[in-house]
Amino acid sequence: MSSQQPQITTSAPGKLWGGRFTEGIDPLMQKYNASIHYDRALYKQDLAGSIAWARANKNRGILNAEEFSKIEKGLKEVGMEWENGTFKIVEEIDEDIHTANERRLSEIVGKEIGGKLHTGRSRNEQIATDMRLWLVQELLKIHEFLENKIKAMAMRAEIEIEICMPGYTHLQRAQPIRWSHWLCSYAFAFASDLERLREVIKRVNRSPLGLGALAGNPFGVDRDTMAKELGFEGLMMNSLNGVGDRDFATETMQWAAMLMGHISRISEDLIIYSTAEFGFLKLSDAYSTGSSLMPQKKNSDSLELLRGKSGRVMGQMMGLLVTTKGLPSTYNKDLQESVEPLLDCVKTTSDSIQILTGVISTLTINPGKMLAALTPDMLATDLADYLVRKGVPFRETHHISGQVVALAEQKNVPMDSLSHADMQSVDKRLGSDFIFDYEKSVEMRTAKGGTSKSSVQEQIAVLKRMLTGQSPGQSSVESFS
Amino acid sequence: MSSQQPQITTSAPGKLWGGRFTEGIDPLMQKYNASIHYDRALYKQDLAGSIAWARANKNRGILNAEEFSKIEKGLKEVGMEWENGTFKIVEEIDEDIHTANERRLSEIVGKEIGGKLHTGRSRNEQIATDMRLWLVQELLKIHEFLENKIKAMAMRAEIEIEICMPGYTHLQRAQPIRWSHWLCSYAFAFASDLERLREVIKRVNRSPLGLGALAGNPFGVDRDTMAKELGFEGLMMNSLNGVGDRDFATETMQWAAMLMGHISRISEDLIIYSTAEFGFLKLSDAYSTGSSLMPQKKNSDSLELLRGKSGRVMGQMMGLLVTTKGLPSTYNKDLQESVEPLLDCVKTTSDSIQILTGVISTLTINPGKMLAALTPDMLATDLADYLVRKGVPFRETHHISGQVVALAEQKNVPMDSLSHADMQSVDKRLGSDFIFDYEKSVEMRTAKGGTSKSSVQEQIAVLKRMLTGQSPGQSSVESFS
Amino acid sequence: MSSQQPQITTSAPGKLWGGRFTEGIDPLMQKYNASIHYDRALYKQDLAGSIAWARANKNRGILNAEEFSKIEKGLKEVGMEWENGTFKIVEEIDEDIHTANERRLSEIVGKEIGGKLHTGRSRNEQIATDMRLWLVQELLKIHEFLENKIKAMAMRAEIEIEICMPGYTHLQRAQPIRWSHWLCSYAFAFASDLERLREVIKRVNRSPLGLGALAGNPFGVDRDTMAKELGFEGLMMNSLNGVGDRDFATETMQWAAMLMGHISRISEDLIIYSTAEFGFLKLSDAYSTGSSLMPQKKNSDSLELLRGKSGRVMGQMMGLLVTTKGLPSTYNKDLQESVEPLLDCVKTTSDSIQILTGVISTLTINPGKMLAALTPDMLATDLADYLVRKGVPFRETHHISGQVVALAEQKNVPMDSLSHADMQSVDKRLGSDFIFDYEKSVEMRTAKGGTSKSSVQEQIAVLKRMLTGQSPGQSSVESFS
Amino acid sequence: MSSQQPQITTSAPGKLWGGRFTEGIDPLMQKYNASIHYDRALYKQDLAGSIAWARANKNRGILNAEEFSKIEKGLKEVGMEWENGTFKIVEEIDEDIHTANERRLSEIVGKEIGGKLHTGRSRNEQIATDMRLWLVQELLKIHEFLENKIKAMAMRAEIEIEICMPGYTHLQRAQPIRWSHWLCSYAFAFASDLERLREVIKRVNRSPLGLGALAGNPFGVDRDTMAKELGFEGLMMNSLNGVGDRDFATETMQWAAMLMGHISRISEDLIIYSTAEFGFLKLSDAYSTGSSLMPQKKNSDSLELLRGKSGRVMGQMMGLLVTTKGLPSTYNKDLQESVEPLLDCVKTTSDSIQILTGVISTLTINPGKMLAALTPDMLATDLADYLVRKGVPFRETHHISGQVVALAEQKNVPMDSLSHADMQSVDKRLGSDFIFDYEKSVEMRTAKGGTSKSSVQEQIAVLKRMLTGQSPGQSSVESFS
Repeated sequence: MSSQQPQITTSAPGKLWGGRFTEGIDPLMQKYNASIHYDRALYKQDLAGSIAWARANKNRGILNAEEFSKIEKGLKEVGMEWENGTFKIVEEIDEDIHTANERRLSEIVGKEIGGKLHTGRSRNEQIATDMRLWLVQELLKIHEFLENKIKAMAMRAEIEIEICMPGYTHLQRAQPIRWSHWLCSYAFAFASDLERLREVIKRVNRSPLGLGALAGNPFGVDRDTMAKELGFEGLMMNSLNGVGDRDFATETMQWAAMLMGHISRISEDLIIYSTAEFGFLKLSDAYSTGSSLMPQKKNSDSLELLRGKSGRVMGQMMGLLVTTKGLPSTYNKDLQESVEPLLDCVKTTSDSIQILTGVISTLTINPGKMLAALTPDMLATDLADYLVRKGVPFRETHHISGQVVALAEQKNVPMDSLSHADMQSVDKRLGSDFIFDYEKSVEMRTAKGGTSKSSVQEQIAVLKRMLTGQSPGQSSVESFS
Repeated sequence: MSSQQPQITTSAPGKLWGGRFTEGIDPLMQKYNASIHYDRALYKQDLAGSIAWARANKNRGILNAEEFSKIEKGLKEVGMEWENGTFKIVEEIDEDIHTANERRLSEIVGKEIGGKLHTGRSRNEQIATDMRLWLVQELLKIHEFLENKIKAMAMRAEIEIEICMPGYTHLQRAQPIRWSHWLCSYAFAFASDLERLREVIKRVNRSPLGLGALAGNPFGVDRDTMAKELGFEGLMMNSLNGVGDRDFATETMQWAAMLMGHISRISEDLIIYSTAEFGFLKLSDAYSTGSSLMPQKKNSDSLELLRGKSGRVMGQMMGLLVTTKGLPSTYNKDLQESVEPLLDCVKTTSDSIQILTGVISTLTINPGKMLAALTPDMLATDLADYLVRKGVPFRETHHISGQVVALAEQKNVPMDSLSHADMQSVDKRLGSDFIFDYEKSVEMRTAKGGTSKSSVQEQIAVLKRMLTGQSPGQSSVESFS
Repeated sequence: MSSQQPQITTSAPGKLWGGRFTEGIDPLMQKYNASIHYDRALYKQDLAGSIAWARANKNRGILNAEEFSKIEKGLKEVGMEWENGTFKIVEEIDEDIHTANERRLSEIVGKEIGGKLHTGRSRNEQIATDMRLWLVQELLKIHEFLENKIKAMAMRAEIEIEICMPGYTHLQRAQPIRWSHWLCSYAFAFASDLERLREVIKRVNRSPLGLGALAGNPFGVDRDTMAKELGFEGLMMNSLNGVGDRDFATETMQWAAMLMGHISRISEDLIIYSTAEFGFLKLSDAYSTGSSLMPQKKNSDSLELLRGKSGRVMGQMMGLLVTTKGLPSTYNKDLQESVEPLLDCVKTTSDSIQILTGVISTLTINPGKMLAALTPDMLATDLADYLVRKGVPFRETHHISGQVVALAEQKNVPMDSLSHADMQSVDKRLGSDFIFDYEKSVEMRTAKGGTSKSSVQEQIAVLKRMLTGQSPGQSSVESFS
Repeated sequence: MSSQQPQITTSAPGKLWGGRFTEGIDPLMQKYNASIHYDRALYKQDLAGSIAWARANKNRGILNAEEFSKIEKGLKEVGMEWENGTFKIVEEIDEDIHTANERRLSEIVGKEIGGKLHTGRSRNEQIATDMRLWLVQELLKIHEFLENKIKAMAMRAEIEIEICMPGYTHLQRAQPIRWSHWLCSYAFAFASDLERLREVIKRVNRSPLGLGALAGNPFGVDRDTMAKELGFEGLMMNSLNGVGDRDFATETMQWAAMLMGHISRISEDLIIYSTAEFGFLKLSDAYSTGSSLMPQKKNSDSLELLRGKSGRVMGQMMGLLVTTKGLPSTYNKDLQESVEPLLDCVKTTSDSIQILTGVISTLTINPGKMLAALTPDMLATDLADYLVRKGVPFRETHHISGQVVALAEQKNVPMDSLSHADMQSVDKRLGSDFIFDYEKSVEMRTAKGGTSKSSVQEQIAVLKRMLTGQSPGQSSVESFS
């Protein structure tokens, strides 16, 4: 600040924008405004972005080689302080990670040099750059966790393919299925999530660096080179859009909301299957907890947390849509509200995927209980189909079979205990050649996507192919083209 | 644990429910499951609840006087440790605040006595009790902040009642109003929030203590006395409902979502009014920030954060609705997901109310700009009304006045610059006795709720009466009864 | 329109606001803008409001007695046309119910008189008045449906109080409870909904009529008298707030969202209880449906729709919060988006309450299955409590009882089949005087809110008292004051 | 139904699943359950699916050639009835479109043949097939509307590239930009929506036909051939997943929610720009409406509806997430709640895109007003950059420029009216060679994405290339690969 103007005092010393302000700040407002307590998570990306920025400015002659070298070295030193836990946040000044890093840099290399770093740059582009860089790295990790989950499910499906269990619709026993068929059903949902994730990553991975506060960069900075240095795969092509958009965060959260929806459904199934009444499976102790009051309890806390956290993630997604709804274009401070939910959403989703993989990998199934839950009425459709094969119209066979069910209920016996005479009393065409056989029922469903062994094996093969699919946008099922 | 059974080992030593578990816990699951890093906020309430609990058990003979006395003293000591910051959380054991406090108590008073505290009690009732106690206390503070805001607005409305400005619909200039009338409009929205808050507090303030894990208390504990000791105003009357319900949290968040909606709207108005183009007011520097790039910028960051945080709160509210949707009755671990959003929602709401009060109290209005924005076409309705008073049907006068507007636009002059001949060319009944007078227009709206001075003063009086209303459920407007 | 100005043509003939417009309207825009296809539901309220309006204007001399009389008669005739289904909507003109009614009135009584109805009035206040009037009437019906539901549940709880069943936490068998205790748990949730509904109605029932487009009424209309005529219990006291607020709709939807949340939870319980595996109850055929493919299926479609529709209502509530978030004050056309969701939300909620009452009233329980599902390990807490009564600290008794559970699991026998020697091997203090008795366990929980018969009977009594509570804001539980 | 069993009566005659039901249905439940009043929108897809189904069954010998031929002819006749409006819904029977079509078919071709259509098929797979078929067709239309919008915006940007206006951040004047740059900013947001839409369509366009109720098809039906006949591009590969998943609807709604978010933001900008205070543009009368009370009003109703409807769509999206959250796998009736919101969401989105295209294509800008709103302080960054080019560190130049701003405010003159001496009083390095020139400022921002003419032209070129991109997943910006 020049000394010629002592009469114009600034009351926000150290703030990046303090030049024209003449009053103090409400201390509560200071905290309300500050983001350093959470955006510090982005320190690495912020520093990498600043180094790329300085290098680009050196290339344009804004910085000389020595200045750049000092800045680069200084920023790396700042990075070491963060990593070692020795970075000291100065509460009144360091309102965000950008300010903190630049403040510290200037302390290390001096204001004369440090004060040149921000030339032509705005925090608007900086935060968008930092968030995108961080997010891509996290999403790549999640991509791996998700692949592992699908692999684990496919593997378990392969090993336990012989096990049969009731399939349910409306939570009522419907038809016999393979346990592996159930495993594959969720594996396919997660495989679609994987496909979508690749598409999301592609869009997150675009660089806003060099877009300025809103109007672009006046020093001819080379945006492509900066983007490549940082690992981006493309550029945001309009400065107003690039600093004012949080679509990359919204899209990630929408993706996470759908994934967590799938997790909530598989958790629901598993919670029900592990009740005393169903008894199909037991969770490993590693994913269960007990009761402080009731000594006998073993609760599926992991699954309930997984199910419950779907609300957290869906709420965060909705919250960001609300925050950005009706916002004027470019940067508005409202957008700061995208950071904290994104950080939490990514962590929650990442943890949840891993926990669920652990749960599924370690749970113990009880094939005997599954088998015992298969009841003859679950073959009522097969009985109807048996008559169809004799030429009776399905709509009529459906009614005949329904009457057999009703007769068994009336007599209070299982359907397969009805005598031949009973059957004949319903319809003469019901011969004694119909056998109540669950395995046979399962094996008849050989069309693609069905529950026969061959069909399930084909599903497992498709799942494996989907894992190797590199390019986003590749169809997750066998397409015709 | 008795020494006679060495063969049954427990792998979760120290856990309240460790008796029957035989495997270790996944470390990630340990963190995923733990709530201590946020429910520690409830330490005071948890300790108060435990003291009330111990006293009630003493009264029933479960504890003797000495045991109770030691437990009470011990719990107070634990409280001191929290307050002094000397409480040491033991990560592997202290999964939640209840476990942490009981673990520490037993270290202080010995396991023989400490181990008696939890008799007949469940963490299910404990967490509901802690949350409700904490929440009532926070809501009472918010109640005060909200009263202060309404007072500040009413006071400002009283002082600046002479100032006129454009009233807008569809963000288009509509009719002249008093600035105080605008202030009152939001004060009434907040007064409704105040009324609702009193109703919410009433329902939060009911005690679940003594409901057990789900089925009630078998030791005849006196729930009324415990509730009174803790300051509750009523009881939850069904144990299944009392431990499985998070309505008190949902209702609080719904309340907060509506309040934040109001805040988002007043912020939007103020952001628009403080643009260069409108220029009606300037925020205090205390609630503004600058740009790291553009030296001339003075941004209404406070208002944008206020507007943006409405998304955060609405999202949290929606998230909890999702989490509890379709949940089986009583306690499920999903409910743990109610704690963290509630803590954050309450803090956000509380801060936001205070920030907005600060913003409104310190902003500077520019009456000249407001006046300059009043344009003659805003009196087109008054012109139509003038003809109504001459007996012309309104629907016709509306068209006539519309033609005057169109003529002025055609001639590219303000409406009040049209000559008498111009007016007559539209309709002979348009006399020269119609005066374009904004103050007069404002003063004509004397019916209740209008923008005349007397009407605004009545509004201020009603607002003040609403502040004194103590009993929840009292109508916020003058009712007829 | 005066004939002196032929050069100013209007292209929106018949539109209430057509005076100054010179271009046509995009036909798609016409439909996008029109609300008549849904706000016609408010025709009765719109006509009643217009009659009150005309009367008030008569009282102020704006209309003479004959004009008023003709208008009143004309409006009643319009009402007859709606009721008889003979009202013909003129698509290009009747964009909303207000326009439609006024257009038709003018056809009946002539433009000279009909054109006077709208004097000093705006559609902004009209739609708010119509919506509030309609909503109060609907909410009063819902109030009655909800009372009936609670009565039905309390009655069933009284009759079937002897039946015991497993109580669950985490969907794991926890402790024995009474079936009536379960019924009461949801009855209390609905009773809180009832209490809240009374508070909501109170706030909906305030009149905005006479507030003008935004600034109030310039003809000194008597708002109190109009409000009384229409059955309102109070006034909206600020014109900007009164025309721009949709809190009454939001609050109704928030209320409905919480109610539907309760419905989703009781539906979940009932769906699970009616599986083959649980088998506790069967829905009446009146609320079940079958499968087009599987003859044996009987699905709880009613309960699944009830559970599913919670999403519909919660989504609508969230949608309105989004729509109003960040809106400038007073009326903006965005608010039109409040009408359709409100109409649907109210219908969905009203239907859902009635359907659920039908389901609960007609379902058949299977007490034998409920009893059979009680297992000795559910008394593990009672075993621990038994030792507590012998002076052993609870924390130790919890571990001892846990070891008994583990031992029974190890031996693969029910806990009550362990020999005395087995018990003693765990802890010498385990005497032979402990009896595994579910009824006794239930009856021990006599503290308020517990599952003993006396406690459940007290709950039923409280529920009945809550039904008679007239005044909103009255505590739904016994308060101490 | 066979006559041998007169004692077993069915009370739901005509229902597809009526065989085993013995009681009547609650009339309200009948309505609550029925979907025919909205799923009739899918009649065409339902019939096409049935024809493909019948052909596949013919190929497997389930139907003979004559039966198939009659069924195909019959179904086409049913289709004609729908198109001609002569199809008569039988309320008690036709609960959904599948039942209605099959009922009518059987009337036309007789029960003997009609009753064979449903062999091996379930309504679970049918509704999923119908919805997906319908949705793909609608999304392809939307794809075209969206392309047209982007084209219209790019074209306008090309034509009006000379016009400059203020760029805003925080709604405060920030830096001068081109009007075309603003147009491109939203065009890029919509281009990302286009890219995402292609990915969504790809996933919607997968066939569930042949998956059965839950377990697959037992007659070896050829799913690939059916899918090809219907125009699908792939198969759902797991039957449990294929009938129980509504991801295709959720994903469509998430896509629509993001698009509507963009529409809400551009609407907000345009609403503000069309205020009297800004005055940058006027909407065509075709997209404006007037006031019933205030003759002078011209309101941007189209834009407010567009903004408001974002809430509707976001709410619907959230609602479906809630409905499917925590649902057990496969089909549950809750899923019926996906149909109505999807139909409405698609219509709302489709209409909104078209309306917005109309608004943007027909609005009139006021370049004079835009230019007049450019003020010298918007070049404060350029002043700082001027000093940067003289070697002064940016952080210092930012402060110096800030002091110039403050001095101008103090003197109450525009910055460009400060004398050379004034400037020198702030800092000696401020020479007289700095010119306040908006065009020059705009033209300096030549880096990619900036607001210079060349940069905007490059943006327009990129936008055009994005429109021709056929394959989903293609990057919407220039990637480096």
